[in-house]
Amino acid sequence: MSEIPLLPKSIGHPLSQLEDPQLTGKSLEFAAMPDPAGDPTHLATLLVRCPDRKGIVASLAQTLSGHGANILAADQHRDSLEGQFFQRIHFDGSELQTDWSSLERGISEVAGRFGMGWQLVHGNESKRVAIFVSKYDHCLWDLLLRHHAGELDAEVPLVVSNHPDAEETVKSFGARFEQFSVNGENKRDQEQREIELLRELDVDLIVLARYMQILSAEFLDEVGVPVINIHHSFLPAFIGGRPYHQAYERGVKLIGATAHYVTSQLDEGPIIEQDVVRCSHRDAVGDLVRKGRDLEKIVLARAVRCHLEDRVLTYGNKTVVFD
Amino acid sequence: MSEIPLLPKSIGHPLSQLEDPQLTGKSLEFAAMPDPAGDPTHLATLLVRCPDRKGIVASLAQTLSGHGANILAADQHRDSLEGQFFQRIHFDGSELQTDWSSLERGISEVAGRFGMGWQLVHGNESKRVAIFVSKYDHCLWDLLLRHHAGELDAEVPLVVSNHPDAEETVKSFGARFEQFSVNGENKRDQEQREIELLRELDVDLIVLARYMQILSAEFLDEVGVPVINIHHSFLPAFIGGRPYHQAYERGVKLIGATAHYVTSQLDEGPIIEQDVVRCSHRDAVGDLVRKGRDLEKIVLARAVRCHLEDRVLTYGNKTVVFD
Amino acid sequence: MSEIPLLPKSIGHPLSQLEDPQLTGKSLEFAAMPDPAGDPTHLATLLVRCPDRKGIVASLAQTLSGHGANILAADQHRDSLEGQFFQRIHFDGSELQTDWSSLERGISEVAGRFGMGWQLVHGNESKRVAIFVSKYDHCLWDLLLRHHAGELDAEVPLVVSNHPDAEETVKSFGARFEQFSVNGENKRDQEQREIELLRELDVDLIVLARYMQILSAEFLDEVGVPVINIHHSFLPAFIGGRPYHQAYERGVKLIGATAHYVTSQLDEGPIIEQDVVRCSHRDAVGDLVRKGRDLEKIVLARAVRCHLEDRVLTYGNKTVVFD
Amino acid sequence: MSEIPLLPKSIGHPLSQLEDPQLTGKSLEFAAMPDPAGDPTHLATLLVRCPDRKGIVASLAQTLSGHGANILAADQHRDSLEGQFFQRIHFDGSELQTDWSSLERGISEVAGRFGMGWQLVHGNESKRVAIFVSKYDHCLWDLLLRHHAGELDAEVPLVVSNHPDAEETVKSFGARFEQFSVNGENKRDQEQREIELLRELDVDLIVLARYMQILSAEFLDEVGVPVINIHHSFLPAFIGGRPYHQAYERGVKLIGATAHYVTSQLDEGPIIEQDVVRCSHRDAVGDLVRKGRDLEKIVLARAVRCHLEDRVLTYGNKTVVFD
Repeated sequence: MSEIPLLPKSIGHPLSQLEDPQLTGKSLEFAAMPDPAGDPTHLATLLVRCPDRKGIVASLAQTLSGHGANILAADQHRDSLEGQFFQRIHFDGSELQTDWSSLERGISEVAGRFGMGWQLVHGNESKRVAIFVSKYDHCLWDLLLRHHAGELDAEVPLVVSNHPDAEETVKSFGARFEQFSVNGENKRDQEQREIELLRELDVDLIVLARYMQILSAEFLDEVGVPVINIHHSFLPAFIGGRPYHQAYERGVKLIGATAHYVTSQLDEGPIIEQDVVRCSHRDAVGDLVRKGRDLEKIVLARAVRCHLEDRVLTYGNKTVVFD
Repeated sequence: MSEIPLLPKSIGHPLSQLEDPQLTGKSLEFAAMPDPAGDPTHLATLLVRCPDRKGIVASLAQTLSGHGANILAADQHRDSLEGQFFQRIHFDGSELQTDWSSLERGISEVAGRFGMGWQLVHGNESKRVAIFVSKYDHCLWDLLLRHHAGELDAEVPLVVSNHPDAEETVKSFGARFEQFSVNGENKRDQEQREIELLRELDVDLIVLARYMQILSAEFLDEVGVPVINIHHSFLPAFIGGRPYHQAYERGVKLIGATAHYVTSQLDEGPIIEQDVVRCSHRDAVGDLVRKGRDLEKIVLARAVRCHLEDRVLTYGNKTVVFD
Repeated sequence: MSEIPLLPKSIGHPLSQLEDPQLTGKSLEFAAMPDPAGDPTHLATLLVRCPDRKGIVASLAQTLSGHGANILAADQHRDSLEGQFFQRIHFDGSELQTDWSSLERGISEVAGRFGMGWQLVHGNESKRVAIFVSKYDHCLWDLLLRHHAGELDAEVPLVVSNHPDAEETVKSFGARFEQFSVNGENKRDQEQREIELLRELDVDLIVLARYMQILSAEFLDEVGVPVINIHHSFLPAFIGGRPYHQAYERGVKLIGATAHYVTSQLDEGPIIEQDVVRCSHRDAVGDLVRKGRDLEKIVLARAVRCHLEDRVLTYGNKTVVFD
Repeated sequence: MSEIPLLPKSIGHPLSQLEDPQLTGKSLEFAAMPDPAGDPTHLATLLVRCPDRKGIVASLAQTLSGHGANILAADQHRDSLEGQFFQRIHFDGSELQTDWSSLERGISEVAGRFGMGWQLVHGNESKRVAIFVSKYDHCLWDLLLRHHAGELDAEVPLVVSNHPDAEETVKSFGARFEQFSVNGENKRDQEQREIELLRELDVDLIVLARYMQILSAEFLDEVGVPVINIHHSFLPAFIGGRPYHQAYERGVKLIGATAHYVTSQLDEGPIIEQDVVRCSHRDAVGDLVRKGRDLEKIVLARAVRCHLEDRVLTYGNKTVVFD
């Protein structure tokens, strides 16, 4: 049953009823209506997770709309095996009929009814990112250059390293550089000092950009912010150290990289993004390392970007990445 | 502002408030709630397009919910250049408080307010597909085998060819085979007979599976159903005949395939899906043809599948493909 | 130091000395010299492996040339870690000044000097392939259709299954179908009968096209021909059973398929070819299975094709695949 | 006919005759023989092109060997349509029994017999690269960082721009920066000055890293070195300006990038490397630009790397890229 065809009935009269005359011949330079994305201060993103039940989508849409919010994008996922529901709603609150507190109370009521966990992120709150790095600096450079190019909606107040090498680079991008040399004896002390600094600088996200130290379970327990790592293999293949050597010895025909949230289980955290590149018998370990660098940069940057845009939800050991 | 963290605050207490105790250790075999996808007769998909305005998402959600429909998945797209809004809502109507006619009237009212074109497709209506083929039969085989394997939710009542070759194959899959030899003189007549047969068999979609005849503008105008074609190049490169020869002569390092809706502009219709595969100086035209076959099969099958699941909307010369 | 530029010195006079006047404007339909690939009876492929030493390439080229063979393609690989040298030489023997036996004696002499293992495969010897299959028949269909389309230079005298399902399909392609039901008690007996049949039919290669039985170490020891398997994961991730379930539970963002030679170490044999396809949280296990089917078909077909063209050498647990 | 099996006869005795006992259990850290790649001063690469005839491969191998050169890698290509033969031979001359001049005379004699164009490149001659850039600096940064990381065997004595923006960046990498502002009136003068500077600095290769000026036919005619450009589309689609806008308007599902040698035909020169990345209706032009940046960097870097390693031959409007 249909009023107007949305799919091409081929040439004759495709969508002709739908074609707004004033659209015809419009150049790409002209935006038909102001894009609310232009002013981030009124934008917000609501993330939701709860047991799957009837009526969740409508209840949230109705509540937001009832307060005058305009839903710009919404995506949801139902995991029917786990019986869980997930949603991301991106909306414009510039014409709220009430205020943000009332809206939050409204959401809170709905959340109570459905047993929801939820999170409301305001568009004007750029996340504050600390990058941890060791000797390999390609991912660090890549993130700093992307940030510089405006690709990442974030602030980068801090770079931490266990080596002094990157100091000059980091400072040339206007970020603070702190070296924390870590050895068997001072690890807890150094991590404690790192946590204090991270809190002082109000950091929201830690990115391990080929940081070759293992963060202790205590650090992860106390730090209170998500940690994203880039592992230089297609996890779960080649867990642990020297994955390119492992890949070489196994004779694989593709090498990969994996960005994941860090948990106390090494290389076992929820995967955000992965990709691979072709290799062959011609590639020595050094070639795999070189090819892998491009992969690591791209995979890590994609994962960080998704996180910064509040597109990633985790459950169990998995992620929902709304695109 | 947040009630319960949805992102891992790392190891300590990640999502612990969210972890429903009875979920812990649940095996993957157990579905927490019955998946309504199991019974297609109550499922439906609503496709919508209209000028972008505030409140559309909420109004539709409210209307569906008000009638007792349960929204299973919804995806939308705003083209801010064109000022157009698109939505696909997949819902379960098994607990409608009213009936389907009332629901449609409700949708129709909303549609009137927003100037919507809309389409409601019921889950129990498998689309009826006619496949057109010439001498190259790999895409035909591929579609028939996928259909046979249950990959495509459709019926295939008819295969049309301008050659007799595929008759036995087609019949072994239980479909009707009709040969329409086309030449300069009989083209309009043959096409007219094809249209009659397509109508008689109540066909909803025509798939050109390497059909080497150009359908006339009149055919496309009259046939009244969408036509999907597979073109053996990465459009808009290598429009027209012998694209693998063109690719060879240009010395490209990738060859492609493109599935698109057919319009009277040859190879210019809205693109649904594309993909490429790597080639090199070692590949003669014959190698490109061989490599391209795999690509053609996969790209065409993906496009047909998206269409059958009502995931494709067209506007102007472009598609929105909801995934 | 150079006589004539081979790289474009840009527009002015690029390669002009090299441009044979009669080439200009030559259409692609015209072959300047007869392609010896046309008559396979005079073509042969020499595969060689030995400890890496100076002079191997020249010695073999000289020997072949000295007997009047014309080298059409040669590719080699040096594994400097292992100190091993590998070469594949494809040549035309239609103008041999001696005969094939003399040529082989010549090769044998060189081989003795360098400690070479070598293998000479004549172009007129199509390999004879037996396909083993269980219930999933997509790879079987795919191989039979490719063979039918002339993509695979081989004969397929036999298909073996532990189920009766594929019998009709196989026979329609003109191959013999034999069912060997295998259980705990009769396994050795059935395998013995299989080996007898394989020998009787002079089979050169066994392809496990989603064959769900594990071949015993005794079978592999006695059968005397290579066995290629398709594993439905990106090995070494997800070894063993139900890899799509494993992939789903781990939450990977890509799924893969791997074609490898079978050894007595399950899923550990030398990898010939691998590829991946993107997946997301939206993909249930059933979707992974569906997406994986395309991957399995393509990866297995590529590996089989490389093997049939004598492009694969193994050493240790790795392959050299000359392309 | 075979002496020793090179392919796995499965488990029993695979390659056992070939397994050198002292190889067994050898760790990957140990190189069985010194890798001559370690000392580049004795390495050289011979590039050859000529009409295809019998005996070329053997004659060259014999000649090199006769002078005491050790062939490390050789690859060749026969274009049977054009009747052309191409070869790249990489060899070690550290144990030449004669000297390099004698070797060159030897090659020259063979070349005369076969009508060869040839080029001998010594391993100790790093190519000198000038990078041309405009406002978009991502490819510039990428090349400088790769060079800095030791990925590119080249020197970068010069960066030319028509804008002042990149000056500081370039100097921080130790390269000379020269601004040549170009307008309608001064173009020939400025290009003339550029050519003088390029000659003075002994430049071997120009890389247009998103240089937004069109080089004149006169410049290309006079400059005497190859010019590699990165075009931000999958050529031949979207020739000319604003390819991302063109891609957006056409509604493609993949965007591409193409690295090619520059000729006087804009965007028509021989293609060295191409790649694509997936996009969707969600991607506005700005998203295509962002996604394309990664592609442009990787495709350009791969092409430059192939060129620097003397792996690219051109003929007509095509390339042979030996990998």
